[in-house]
Amino acid sequence: MDYIISDRVKTLKPSAIREIFKYAADPSVVSLSAGNPAPEAFPVKAIEEISASILSKEPVSALQYSVTEGYPPLRKAVWEHMQNKYNVGGADDDILITSGAQQVMDLFTKTVCNEGDTVICEAPSFIGSLNSFRSYNCRLCGIPVEKDGMNIEALENALKTEKNVRFIYIIANFQNPSGITTSLEKRKAIYELADKYGVMILEDNPYGELRISGENVPCIKSFDTKGIVLYAGSFSKVLSPGMRLGFAIGPKAVLQKMIVCKQGEDVHTNSWAQMVAYRFMTEYDYEAHLKGLREIYKKKAEFCMELLDKYLVPGGISYDRIEGGLFIWCSLPENARISMTEFCKQAVLNKVCVVPGNAFLTDEAQQSRSFRINFSTPTDEQLEKGIRILGRLAAELL
Amino acid sequence: MDYIISDRVKTLKPSAIREIFKYAADPSVVSLSAGNPAPEAFPVKAIEEISASILSKEPVSALQYSVTEGYPPLRKAVWEHMQNKYNVGGADDDILITSGAQQVMDLFTKTVCNEGDTVICEAPSFIGSLNSFRSYNCRLCGIPVEKDGMNIEALENALKTEKNVRFIYIIANFQNPSGITTSLEKRKAIYELADKYGVMILEDNPYGELRISGENVPCIKSFDTKGIVLYAGSFSKVLSPGMRLGFAIGPKAVLQKMIVCKQGEDVHTNSWAQMVAYRFMTEYDYEAHLKGLREIYKKKAEFCMELLDKYLVPGGISYDRIEGGLFIWCSLPENARISMTEFCKQAVLNKVCVVPGNAFLTDEAQQSRSFRINFSTPTDEQLEKGIRILGRLAAELL
Repeated sequence: MDYIISDRVKTLKPSAIREIFKYAADPSVVSLSAGNPAPEAFPVKAIEEISASILSKEPVSALQYSVTEGYPPLRKAVWEHMQNKYNVGGADDDILITSGAQQVMDLFTKTVCNEGDTVICEAPSFIGSLNSFRSYNCRLCGIPVEKDGMNIEALENALKTEKNVRFIYIIANFQNPSGITTSLEKRKAIYELADKYGVMILEDNPYGELRISGENVPCIKSFDTKGIVLYAGSFSKVLSPGMRLGFAIGPKAVLQKMIVCKQGEDVHTNSWAQMVAYRFMTEYDYEAHLKGLREIYKKKAEFCMELLDKYLVPGGISYDRIEGGLFIWCSLPENARISMTEFCKQAVLNKVCVVPGNAFLTDEAQQSRSFRINFSTPTDEQLEKGIRILGRLAAELL
Repeated sequence: MDYIISDRVKTLKPSAIREIFKYAADPSVVSLSAGNPAPEAFPVKAIEEISASILSKEPVSALQYSVTEGYPPLRKAVWEHMQNKYNVGGADDDILITSGAQQVMDLFTKTVCNEGDTVICEAPSFIGSLNSFRSYNCRLCGIPVEKDGMNIEALENALKTEKNVRFIYIIANFQNPSGITTSLEKRKAIYELADKYGVMILEDNPYGELRISGENVPCIKSFDTKGIVLYAGSFSKVLSPGMRLGFAIGPKAVLQKMIVCKQGEDVHTNSWAQMVAYRFMTEYDYEAHLKGLREIYKKKAEFCMELLDKYLVPGGISYDRIEGGLFIWCSLPENARISMTEFCKQAVLNKVCVVPGNAFLTDEAQQSRSFRINFSTPTDEQLEKGIRILGRLAAELL
């Protein structure tokens, strides 16, 4: 039977990464293609204790229907954390708890974009968000990312020429997939351009707490005096992604509509997860936990960069050093004898999985010389083995 | 600042019930307006045991990212349950785990409806679903519900005259809010009409396991030889609504697109909830639990109907006896001296909250002589107090 599929969904495809995961599921393949937090980063013991306490002392709160806005104590705890630590959230802002930060992308797009409206994003950018924008039939306009963030000239040009631009989507810290961090200067320039052209900014910050070197750069939302920034936060990298817990901080007028949309989407976010996160933030030493995470990821990232220096750089593959996050962006030389796609294919045939860079572009048919590797999921042994193989391929093929 | 809000969301309002909840939050008010399962129906002890076991033995599975389709063991357990008990799910069907059944409404609408397409629903119907359809800018066409289900003539007329009808939305068992159960004859007639006019059926069955009297009526999905029915199931009334766990069983071709949409919406459903539900279904006596639930609700429903017979019927208010579910639909006499809206307002002023019937219509501005009461949330004392007050008002005002 031929089913009628809506225009917005007809052309949607599962993300290319999911297709790559099929190869990665083979246990003999070293997967550098995931984006999972390191399992040793989960505060398992604390979650176990808190969960037991909740289910014995206040089971009905955890099991009964709750309010769409989110568990009030968690909303307050997150708000205070974001206020005190990052100066995020002003007098006209409010906070909404979501089922992962992914839901912020969905609800915000649903709320502010008509079909055919344009979303400006970094090129490359996070596939999950791009697919969320696509699922509302938005046009995507990618702005090339440089070592310190979007090319500002290209951004202004897009704002001038693109029709019905609704917002600029940016991951300013340790971007997925490029690993780059947008400089303060560029953050300010992007904010000023958004204000000048009357568009909003969707600032997605899933990796913000995972800085391993350098100085913190203020969030765009922290200098949002005009109320044009919607901030998306996540518990996936600091607590657990399986809990599906995120939040949005932004203008009340926009959040109110997002709340109505959330009511029709999943009523509210899993209550147990919200209660666990609240008690973990307030009854345990949350800052010490975050410090511990940074140590885990710093060790892993530095080990990975050492391996890249040792095995890949001599073969002609370059990469940008990162200051945090979970990803490193590697690029083939301009004069490589084979394409990046062919290189990634050869990698899979040699039992190493990486994600080809074009998967992160607004048009997957575009060319890219880069691929993304992840260092948080594999063990040290897997990482060394995988990168050694990539190095051998680079020496043989490039 | 004036924010640009999309056309689809601009006119969306929080459900009228939420507004009523504001009054209901006053502890001196008896709320008969909720739809919460009875807290004593939650298998707290079992959830506590299972949760402790999961977090001590397989914490990483519960805390790490998972697949969008749902936890494979749960998908299998639910599929087998629905197959064996209700003959739901055929060779061309598959199952998707969702964040509550509400998400089925959202994903299905997103997948099959363009903006402006028409959804046919029962009048009255469940507000949460209607708002979900509205949030994709669907036109709603309500078909009056009789004691045995939709008026079939009106349904065929709508199918003939409405443009771009995509699906018929039906709660065939113990409908919210009317309490009625669609007869087998009408289920077959609705299925044949859907097939004849080339539209799908979205069969929402949140209360199916809560039958307290009479014989089970086969699900429409159980005789879906053409692959035109998408079945929505829920754990909210049989396990816990706070977990936000539901599922869809329907044609693979449609589910595949719904999965891509879910990826962009919340990636996957909370893993802990999926694992708890799986182990509860397979390691505990699930059928005995369901039988226990039916006993709880039978007692509550019968007590409620006794109170209605005692206090409301003599005052001129009629109601339809129910065979299951959580709601009873009460109607003022045709010659009442005051409107239903005014009656509900007087009820609130006298500290009893019920939901006015027009809140469940496709156009809230339409008139209704009915209101909905819920008997699962209040205690017996609250129920008696509330209905006694309604009876006094009926005697005074009608």
